[in-house]
Amino acid sequence: MIIIMHPEATPFEIDNVVAEVETKGWQTHLSHDSGQTIIGLQGAGQPLDPFYLGQMPGVEDTMAITQKFKLTSRAFRPEDTTFHIGQVTIGTDQLAVIAGPCSVESRAQLLETAHAVKEAGATFLRGGAYKPRSSPYSFQGLGEAGLELLAEAREATGLPVVTEVMSPTRVALVAVYADVLQIGARNMQNFDLLNAVGQAQKPVLLKRGMSATIEDLLMAAEYILSHGNNQVMLCERGIRTFDNKYTRNTFDVNAIPLMKELTHLPIVADPSHAIGVRRHVQAITLAGVAAGADGLIIETHPNPDQAVSDGDQSLTLPQFSELMQQVRAMAQAVGRTV
Amino acid sequence: MIIIMHPEATPFEIDNVVAEVETKGWQTHLSHDSGQTIIGLQGAGQPLDPFYLGQMPGVEDTMAITQKFKLTSRAFRPEDTTFHIGQVTIGTDQLAVIAGPCSVESRAQLLETAHAVKEAGATFLRGGAYKPRSSPYSFQGLGEAGLELLAEAREATGLPVVTEVMSPTRVALVAVYADVLQIGARNMQNFDLLNAVGQAQKPVLLKRGMSATIEDLLMAAEYILSHGNNQVMLCERGIRTFDNKYTRNTFDVNAIPLMKELTHLPIVADPSHAIGVRRHVQAITLAGVAAGADGLIIETHPNPDQAVSDGDQSLTLPQFSELMQQVRAMAQAVGRTV
Amino acid sequence: MIIIMHPEATPFEIDNVVAEVETKGWQTHLSHDSGQTIIGLQGAGQPLDPFYLGQMPGVEDTMAITQKFKLTSRAFRPEDTTFHIGQVTIGTDQLAVIAGPCSVESRAQLLETAHAVKEAGATFLRGGAYKPRSSPYSFQGLGEAGLELLAEAREATGLPVVTEVMSPTRVALVAVYADVLQIGARNMQNFDLLNAVGQAQKPVLLKRGMSATIEDLLMAAEYILSHGNNQVMLCERGIRTFDNKYTRNTFDVNAIPLMKELTHLPIVADPSHAIGVRRHVQAITLAGVAAGADGLIIETHPNPDQAVSDGDQSLTLPQFSELMQQVRAMAQAVGRTV
Amino acid sequence: MIIIMHPEATPFEIDNVVAEVETKGWQTHLSHDSGQTIIGLQGAGQPLDPFYLGQMPGVEDTMAITQKFKLTSRAFRPEDTTFHIGQVTIGTDQLAVIAGPCSVESRAQLLETAHAVKEAGATFLRGGAYKPRSSPYSFQGLGEAGLELLAEAREATGLPVVTEVMSPTRVALVAVYADVLQIGARNMQNFDLLNAVGQAQKPVLLKRGMSATIEDLLMAAEYILSHGNNQVMLCERGIRTFDNKYTRNTFDVNAIPLMKELTHLPIVADPSHAIGVRRHVQAITLAGVAAGADGLIIETHPNPDQAVSDGDQSLTLPQFSELMQQVRAMAQAVGRTV
Repeated sequence: MIIIMHPEATPFEIDNVVAEVETKGWQTHLSHDSGQTIIGLQGAGQPLDPFYLGQMPGVEDTMAITQKFKLTSRAFRPEDTTFHIGQVTIGTDQLAVIAGPCSVESRAQLLETAHAVKEAGATFLRGGAYKPRSSPYSFQGLGEAGLELLAEAREATGLPVVTEVMSPTRVALVAVYADVLQIGARNMQNFDLLNAVGQAQKPVLLKRGMSATIEDLLMAAEYILSHGNNQVMLCERGIRTFDNKYTRNTFDVNAIPLMKELTHLPIVADPSHAIGVRRHVQAITLAGVAAGADGLIIETHPNPDQAVSDGDQSLTLPQFSELMQQVRAMAQAVGRTV
Repeated sequence: MIIIMHPEATPFEIDNVVAEVETKGWQTHLSHDSGQTIIGLQGAGQPLDPFYLGQMPGVEDTMAITQKFKLTSRAFRPEDTTFHIGQVTIGTDQLAVIAGPCSVESRAQLLETAHAVKEAGATFLRGGAYKPRSSPYSFQGLGEAGLELLAEAREATGLPVVTEVMSPTRVALVAVYADVLQIGARNMQNFDLLNAVGQAQKPVLLKRGMSATIEDLLMAAEYILSHGNNQVMLCERGIRTFDNKYTRNTFDVNAIPLMKELTHLPIVADPSHAIGVRRHVQAITLAGVAAGADGLIIETHPNPDQAVSDGDQSLTLPQFSELMQQVRAMAQAVGRTV
Repeated sequence: MIIIMHPEATPFEIDNVVAEVETKGWQTHLSHDSGQTIIGLQGAGQPLDPFYLGQMPGVEDTMAITQKFKLTSRAFRPEDTTFHIGQVTIGTDQLAVIAGPCSVESRAQLLETAHAVKEAGATFLRGGAYKPRSSPYSFQGLGEAGLELLAEAREATGLPVVTEVMSPTRVALVAVYADVLQIGARNMQNFDLLNAVGQAQKPVLLKRGMSATIEDLLMAAEYILSHGNNQVMLCERGIRTFDNKYTRNTFDVNAIPLMKELTHLPIVADPSHAIGVRRHVQAITLAGVAAGADGLIIETHPNPDQAVSDGDQSLTLPQFSELMQQVRAMAQAVGRTV
Repeated sequence: MIIIMHPEATPFEIDNVVAEVETKGWQTHLSHDSGQTIIGLQGAGQPLDPFYLGQMPGVEDTMAITQKFKLTSRAFRPEDTTFHIGQVTIGTDQLAVIAGPCSVESRAQLLETAHAVKEAGATFLRGGAYKPRSSPYSFQGLGEAGLELLAEAREATGLPVVTEVMSPTRVALVAVYADVLQIGARNMQNFDLLNAVGQAQKPVLLKRGMSATIEDLLMAAEYILSHGNNQVMLCERGIRTFDNKYTRNTFDVNAIPLMKELTHLPIVADPSHAIGVRRHVQAITLAGVAAGADGLIIETHPNPDQAVSDGDQSLTLPQFSELMQQVRAMAQAVGRTV
């Protein structure tokens, strides 16, 4: 059960409700949503009377939510969550299109890409300054210098910037430069990091772990939302299965309609990682839109064969431009815009 | 390597080529494609001179195919395979739409469904007379009585019939009634059955096993093609992964563009089994078309909640009709027709 | 629920009980166990009174079994199932050890292997005469000639013979030569084949499909047991997972204690397929015994590098002999014998 | 390729070698092993002459290592790595046995457990003070108070302490109290954390991620070793597969002999998480030892049904004591001690 307090509930009223349910043997967890305090109940106390609780001073409503995820669930918030980033509103009929290189490599590479994807119709610029690499010997990103280039590219194009943060110690720094903090698949259950971006009150793009269940992903989002930060996009980027001879991952397209049902948060598809093969990114992009994704994140590079990371799955700039034409036709077929 | 003989090559010429390569330590496997004999080479013999072989009487061409699948590969046949079933041509821009109940239950159920799906735009009728069930205690299908009902429904609607055959001993019987022989996921590597439908020279719908790799599926098709039967549709119907809390399987949408590249055979998507939840079948159907499927197979039932099998994933007849509207819009967006 | 009839129940009494429960809206499925008729109930009829049913003439007992598998379950038969094959009793503290080549290749190969594994302490000879191969171009087995060689090897060594049958049409033929009919992983849900070996009343070695759940495997066994054939060994042979770079499959050692709890049938471990790498077969063999397996099946070949199939995972004859020394020490550590 | 410098190589000599290979277009990465500098080469420069490099001042040896993991590989260090923690030496014939509760809950709980596992023969105490929980509403651990209790229990029993660290910011704090820093499965690719424990120069227990390949795990260890910290134990704790109806994970017992071949680091088995069911922990423990594990980590609790986390898989104290008897017999069967 969760208890939703009035926006104008006093600290005294909140404490009073907490005391009431703790007396009955429950543990409580406070979070905040749109200026309202939410009292979540855990454990196994005595039965509670929702009617009695609903009459206590300061209580707006009580809800029985049977799923493990609470604030993330449709049961808690039936309508789609939308939020503004720069000129863009996420979670509406208009698709968010995030494009750019895997890694920020140089000023020239980033600015050329930023201008090209902007012209083709992208609404966000992506690029990695801190890169999670399976080998300690691989390029680890330009770090703060990369963040500065991203900020310059935003200045030049007006595109808000999405970039990954890998460590709680660097959330504050990355938040200075980025419009959206990306949590990578390998960090989906790095709970200290989730808490840090939750507290940062910045929009977050949370990628699904490569073998995370849908429930795992929604619970990871719950960490962020429990700090009162609802500006979270969930990203399906392919899962690990038994067959990876010809593709990097398996795009779990089922997850899109399923998550649209279970949660009010916007869903972004990442066809680049999901299939990992440049010439097949187009088909998976269109499938993602057809299945109901609210946004796309697509790796794009001026010269993919020279990319320091993920070149195999990056589109060239002309390929991205061509793909956007097809995305527009597809969006129209499912009643959306780009 | 494979050696392709002229259509008019004589048995003597074929024997001669076989003898030549066997002398060099190779084993041979003969198959037939469009009236031409194909000599496949296995094992590890001495190097062969393609130029010399190409000059032998009766030889049309030689091809080095590095993949394990030969006749199934794009390398062997670059253009899409198409074939006619009744009025329909499979493998063209026109989507094949196969609809009907999981199991044939009764005359009334089947005829009502057949008329409704025909009216909504389906081009094939499906229905199971022999059902592979995980429990010996579950309904096992009406058997030959079910086949007779399917034939009656074809008579009434003009829709060609797709139905499963589970055993080599029943291929001849099922082939009397069916237009397309379906091989179910659990029998994908039932090699005696694959040989039997290969020899039957009827169109085949071959479903991917629930944990079969793409290569396993193409090798299973190779069994059928090696008997000179090229009328094979491959069906992606969802794979088994670590996450099945909310869905029955994981639709491997990546497999669609990948198989379109690797093989010339038409690809059919089965959204019903792939997600297993009625209200999400629509999204997965559209994703399948967007990704490039050549056909769809969709479970439809007059009263899904009373179905003896797979009711949870079956559409009602009005839902199927509504879905067909959306399929038409989607087909148009990707340059196809229904 | 299942209803167990007295051994001396008359057909009239059986019919009477069937009629009683069918009147209440249930479907019935009859099977036989040790000379007693078992009436299984399916569907969703009205509530039944076990006390009333237990009083009906000819009824010995009624059992509520909540699992899908009935005759296979420990609930149905709490004590371990044992059965005799030649001089060996399966399902006791003595480990069954099945050894021999993947494929029967020649008289010399088979007899040399048979004598060597017998001397090393094996209690069964294995060898494939009909081979399920993913490619139609690979060696498909010697067929009946292979069966004859197996019979000759049994004659020479006294070892009972385990060999695979792939098709219901050949069950009768294989049963003439074999002591144990093996169902391969790819045919685990070939239900017509399961029915055929159920009716054959011969011992069966049923291998788990490469992505079959434990429940799938127990349900497949249920098909065999529902024909009154309880002489079934279940075989864990490795499952398909996301990691196959260095090994062929993942040995699901958890399945051994789990199946010992869920079913009364003996469990055999197949370390050869489970890891697929010769030099690691020893570790997995020992792990299987440590976890509680009742038997082992191990591929052995006089010259693995020349084997026509599965050479990479076959032990040489001296390696097998050495392994048996370690198996004896391990068996002793867990209170068993070889 | 890697270049191993003499222990007494001067900074000037090292710089000289680095300059030489960078001139040829390679990137370099320096790490340290037992007081020697290791120069790793990345990228795709011009061919290098190992003979010429080997003659350069300060160079001891050069090695071509084709695997992605270098310092972690057997190719780099053929003999088993051993290291001392308190009185115990890890990586020898003597099994390390780590036991204790999932979470540190109270002084009484921890001390009772510590004394009992010590008496039963455990050589380390485990207990979580910082807990990674999938829900933000679950118990998150006692934090530093938990660390203090662990230190007290060490004082009382002499058992070295293994405890998890979840964030780079807390490595210094945890290192004050712990003898071994545990990295949990969810953080296996938290690269900032790996770098931090690498720099801490304390022994590390690195758990395999739930869908990490063996190669992923060895690459994660490489991060730690690249800081000159070789005191790393790798832990197999079960992977995520398609079948989790009856067990929590699938114990990948294949990984044990495989990792013993690929790396010189000691391997620990975690049967508690690997199967997740108390009554089956024994079988999996024995299988782990039989397969060659160098150590065990087993959850133990005075009253598992009241545990705040992982109670289902925790042994009672008498069960742990009984298990240790069996572990001794098993260790003897494979030529080891406890």
